[in-house]
Amino acid sequence: MTTMFDPWILSEDSFDPKKQHHKETVFTIGNGYLCTRGAFEEGYPGDHRATFIHGVFDEVPIDLTELANAPDWLPISIYLNGERFSLDSGTIESFQRILDLRTGLLTRIVRWRSPSGMSATLTFERFASLADEHLLCARCRVTPEFAGTVEFRAGLNGNMHNEGLVHWQWLGQGERDGVTYLHNCTRKSRIEIATAMQITNVIGREIVREAWDVENAPTRMVRLEAAPGQTVGIDKRVAVFTSRDVESKEVVNAVVNRVRESTEWESALEASNRAWTEEWNHTDVIIEGDNEVQISIRFNLFQMLVAAPRHDDRVNIGAKTLSGFGYRGHAFWDTEIFMLPLFNYTAPHIAKNLLNYRYRNLPGARRKAQANGFEGAQFPWKSADTGDEVTPTWVPHFADRTKLVRIWAGDIEIHISADIAHAVHQYWQATSDEEWFIEKGVELILDTAKFWASRAEWNADAHRYEYNDVIGPDEYHEHVNNNAYTNRMAQWNLQTALEALEWLKGRVPEKANELVQSLDLNEERLKKWRDVIEKIYLHIEPSGLIEQFEGYYQRKDIDLAALEPRAKSAQEIFGIEGCNETQILKQPDVLMMQYILRKHYSAESVRANYDYYNPRTDHTYGSSLGPSIQAIVACMMDYPEDAYEHFIRAVRADLRDVRGNASDGIHAASSGGTWQAVVFGFGGLQVTSDGWTTMPRLPKHWKRLAFKFFHRGKMHNVDLKA
Amino acid sequence: MTTMFDPWILSEDSFDPKKQHHKETVFTIGNGYLCTRGAFEEGYPGDHRATFIHGVFDEVPIDLTELANAPDWLPISIYLNGERFSLDSGTIESFQRILDLRTGLLTRIVRWRSPSGMSATLTFERFASLADEHLLCARCRVTPEFAGTVEFRAGLNGNMHNEGLVHWQWLGQGERDGVTYLHNCTRKSRIEIATAMQITNVIGREIVREAWDVENAPTRMVRLEAAPGQTVGIDKRVAVFTSRDVESKEVVNAVVNRVRESTEWESALEASNRAWTEEWNHTDVIIEGDNEVQISIRFNLFQMLVAAPRHDDRVNIGAKTLSGFGYRGHAFWDTEIFMLPLFNYTAPHIAKNLLNYRYRNLPGARRKAQANGFEGAQFPWKSADTGDEVTPTWVPHFADRTKLVRIWAGDIEIHISADIAHAVHQYWQATSDEEWFIEKGVELILDTAKFWASRAEWNADAHRYEYNDVIGPDEYHEHVNNNAYTNRMAQWNLQTALEALEWLKGRVPEKANELVQSLDLNEERLKKWRDVIEKIYLHIEPSGLIEQFEGYYQRKDIDLAALEPRAKSAQEIFGIEGCNETQILKQPDVLMMQYILRKHYSAESVRANYDYYNPRTDHTYGSSLGPSIQAIVACMMDYPEDAYEHFIRAVRADLRDVRGNASDGIHAASSGGTWQAVVFGFGGLQVTSDGWTTMPRLPKHWKRLAFKFFHRGKMHNVDLKA
Repeated sequence: MTTMFDPWILSEDSFDPKKQHHKETVFTIGNGYLCTRGAFEEGYPGDHRATFIHGVFDEVPIDLTELANAPDWLPISIYLNGERFSLDSGTIESFQRILDLRTGLLTRIVRWRSPSGMSATLTFERFASLADEHLLCARCRVTPEFAGTVEFRAGLNGNMHNEGLVHWQWLGQGERDGVTYLHNCTRKSRIEIATAMQITNVIGREIVREAWDVENAPTRMVRLEAAPGQTVGIDKRVAVFTSRDVESKEVVNAVVNRVRESTEWESALEASNRAWTEEWNHTDVIIEGDNEVQISIRFNLFQMLVAAPRHDDRVNIGAKTLSGFGYRGHAFWDTEIFMLPLFNYTAPHIAKNLLNYRYRNLPGARRKAQANGFEGAQFPWKSADTGDEVTPTWVPHFADRTKLVRIWAGDIEIHISADIAHAVHQYWQATSDEEWFIEKGVELILDTAKFWASRAEWNADAHRYEYNDVIGPDEYHEHVNNNAYTNRMAQWNLQTALEALEWLKGRVPEKANELVQSLDLNEERLKKWRDVIEKIYLHIEPSGLIEQFEGYYQRKDIDLAALEPRAKSAQEIFGIEGCNETQILKQPDVLMMQYILRKHYSAESVRANYDYYNPRTDHTYGSSLGPSIQAIVACMMDYPEDAYEHFIRAVRADLRDVRGNASDGIHAASSGGTWQAVVFGFGGLQVTSDGWTTMPRLPKHWKRLAFKFFHRGKMHNVDLKA
Repeated sequence: MTTMFDPWILSEDSFDPKKQHHKETVFTIGNGYLCTRGAFEEGYPGDHRATFIHGVFDEVPIDLTELANAPDWLPISIYLNGERFSLDSGTIESFQRILDLRTGLLTRIVRWRSPSGMSATLTFERFASLADEHLLCARCRVTPEFAGTVEFRAGLNGNMHNEGLVHWQWLGQGERDGVTYLHNCTRKSRIEIATAMQITNVIGREIVREAWDVENAPTRMVRLEAAPGQTVGIDKRVAVFTSRDVESKEVVNAVVNRVRESTEWESALEASNRAWTEEWNHTDVIIEGDNEVQISIRFNLFQMLVAAPRHDDRVNIGAKTLSGFGYRGHAFWDTEIFMLPLFNYTAPHIAKNLLNYRYRNLPGARRKAQANGFEGAQFPWKSADTGDEVTPTWVPHFADRTKLVRIWAGDIEIHISADIAHAVHQYWQATSDEEWFIEKGVELILDTAKFWASRAEWNADAHRYEYNDVIGPDEYHEHVNNNAYTNRMAQWNLQTALEALEWLKGRVPEKANELVQSLDLNEERLKKWRDVIEKIYLHIEPSGLIEQFEGYYQRKDIDLAALEPRAKSAQEIFGIEGCNETQILKQPDVLMMQYILRKHYSAESVRANYDYYNPRTDHTYGSSLGPSIQAIVACMMDYPEDAYEHFIRAVRADLRDVRGNASDGIHAASSGGTWQAVVFGFGGLQVTSDGWTTMPRLPKHWKRLAFKFFHRGKMHNVDLKA
């Protein structure tokens, strides 16, 4: 089938069972409250069908907690003259799947012939309303080429699990005014959920209608008369509430009422579309001259938008958004460094929610600092619902389960506390949301600074402060001393804390006093901060080249280019220990720092570091966090074609399954990074206290780059033409 | 309700939700192929409903593998005028649950009033056929006191899990000739299972009948007219086959055919009852003058009989039989030392199956020995399907999941290899099954001996062999040197191996030669065996007192009696480390050895050890393995009243939930031990090569003790009267 290129339509024309799980991730839809993977309504063997709802965590062994795969709202199975429709039987005559990125409507059109020869065209549509985040709608139409019956079985299914782990207990189910509901509860965290459905808009002549009230899988069956060419079908309207939204005793009422009060398909879709139009109005990026990048950047933005909490500031976005089982819904620095810039500039209310999550979790960060013998707030490397560290200490070895592997990130990958402080500052700079900064932001910056000062080690011989035994952003190197990124970001955190406190003392002295009291910011402590700022070890060569960590230059220098072509990461080739002994990077570490603190580095210094670290970085199979940042730094040095090479890896991460693990969920940091690459890299946007400028460095074949951004409450348009 | 005492009927007259899981264990039924816990057909909140089938293992994290909770065959829910019958709503007017130990028929009779006032008497019956181990039958009768409808919903449910862990994947379901089937497969081990059901013998006037073909929970609904006092009901006939029984492609055919070909309730029950009569004919124990013990001993025997594999020699009996999630279906030395004597003497075909399991798993035992740098066969402490060690090396700390606890039993609780060799020898002695002994038994004894010789450490200073860093039967003491039980059993194993080899050389020289070749039993090796036998360290005082392990006497001597009354184990009181430093025993260690090798010890020596160790043993809250052995040794010394005190603890272990963990499943070793206490303890049965004698030492209030046993193929009757 040939179709005109539509820069909003992501589609595929065939079904490849080998890509089943990858495509389930790609065709994820959602509305910031929940996301649902693109599994089929009727099921397919081995599918990873999943709906994840923000904040609905439950206990797991080893990893402590994970987002529970919610009761399934999708089930619609179809029987043609009694034969079950399934893509693993019969013949697929044609297949098309379409995700309309403009509206979040997912459509699948299949012409199928059953094993006994019944043919029909089946159309499935679904969307999660962006206008009403508790509302989900599905529609199915069947045009038979035979005479007989078409039977629809639409259900709710509480028998869901996370790759074998059950989180839901059945509490009850029933029917009220034609609405079927199901009531469940997480087994350990005791979060209640109610799901309700109504079958409406039944098209065709009914033969039988039954309510199959099977425990934990209530199902509505309707059998219709089939005549060749005459379309029959049903709509399915679903609502979801949890005890995080309303009181436990109200969840069932809430879903039943929501389904009853919700409107029919057309008007519900229209309301959702209006909300999407509004969303794209400040988020869209237009790129002309590069169809792949145009659709891909929109896909990445879409996946950010469906995962971003709009009405809940107790949750964060996991490293795999709400689109897969990977990382169990846990949030990392990925949010602050890779995703927040997008929201700061296009949807500040979302950015605020995400930062409030960190503010609410300050007690957890303080518990962590205290448990490790430090002061202030040490944020967890992996964060879930309570803000306590959820990185496991030990995990079973993947090959020999009697062996254990020590995971160090929760202990020593400490840079995240500075990353969060930086994001707080960035939000303030971008939005001028002074009220929030006074109320919450300053405290976050001060208490992380307090952590850094207490964590700094004085080296009396070298007369300097050090941060030893850490992991920097480049995770190929563990247990390093004086990682450049960590030391510099700590210094920045301390410096910014002093400035923020000064500023607050001038702006709202009583709040400043309150914080000085509650955080015990006496003069001696602040003096120590200044001392650390002044004497922190930062190894910078005269050329501006910065050593990634102490002794890095002594590691084995491998010619990575000579290993091409390869299909494995450097870590797989050399082993974890072996890789640690080389200079190969999983992701740019020094460059990341120079990008984040770009106002502080000269072009020469950036160039020296780019030239050194670029050939030593495992761009293709290292971290998915790297390519977008690498692209920006290449742009900073006016290498737009080099930048494009990195950038295209980032935009393709999930669409083309570059790393082979897109089945686990969207690479959220990469998605967020693509927007930064476009705006700060190719667009060269620079925002200062006075205003903003752009410095376009478009790849040759791009004809136009246009985007919008908020700055200090006002929306600005950028439209750059080649 | 007052009822005459029936020495075959286990019953209760009320339902206590607090004892829900304990009673599920107690009312477990089965047929040696599978067991089903006594959960209710209609469900109850939080029930641990489970059916375990021998050999159907699937992977789990940490513990490697476990018996998968099979698709549920029980579901029958009942609606009175549309109101769901459930014991957690409405009013229970009366409740009675009866397990007929003679036939394995479980009956529940409930008079219930619904929240809106509909009253009815409901009777549920179920049995697992002992005549056809693939056949399960359930019956439900409802006598309403109202006019209206009674609805039955009978189903199969593949959405089962093991305390949150899903093992089953759905493969398909359907209907053939009125038989509904469900087809599943374990997620990792790929064992297929088919379950089928047919609803028969519908009593009452039908209003509606529907087939609710919901995925993984096919359900048959029939709504009947209700008139006061007129009983309505259904029978449900179920079959189960797995791909361990027939080829994968045949499992569905097998269950459908079995259901179709099986007979109606009455004749199926009659066939099963006949098989039970046959079973009890050689297993029953009669005790007069002690009603509690009479019913309890039968209960313990019943639980042994329903768990014992009659037609499968690839499986063992787990430490919690097939009756609960505890120990995940793994088998320990509990089988050989505590259960096998019962089977040796009452059901030698079962004993042979269990020993064949060990013979089949010799390769796993050899792998374990080799991995540890030893020769021969080192049997795993915990054994499942492959015979490889399934004791985890590390488990998360129960209170702080970031911490790990090292589990040493799999590494150093090595006595099990001698226990198995001893069981092999006992089987031969009891049955004279020479063919089996020649074919398999001798090899088991020789290859374990080979292990013991290679594991022995030569102490040149003391001029002796030692087994250091072990755990003996008493698990309160880990990492001990020269545990008396271990050293003596190793010596016995080596000695018996030499004798068995000699015997075989005379009896079947070619088989002896074959083993000499395959196990490399050269003269030098046998010389080493003799050397170890001669010089193994056995610390025996002149009084006959044996030190449990080297340095035991130097541990703190605690006055256990002074701690009474207590409700905690010594380990809970002193902590794991603290308890290790005392002389307190979890279970008799030296006495166990003296019981097992009782022909080798004088009465004086046993008395010296009994007097020393008895007051130092945590009888009440230590190991459930202890009391039955303690009872036998007390009998050996002619202390029948002391013996009774220990014995009653053993027979009550599950019925009265003495240790508070009966909910996890039957204490199988305790059950097996109760038979030994009765027969070898109170009955004083001694079997020699010439014949047998008894030396009755009945508790004062017992009027009669009668039992039967096989010896060398002949059944003997013992009838002892006070």
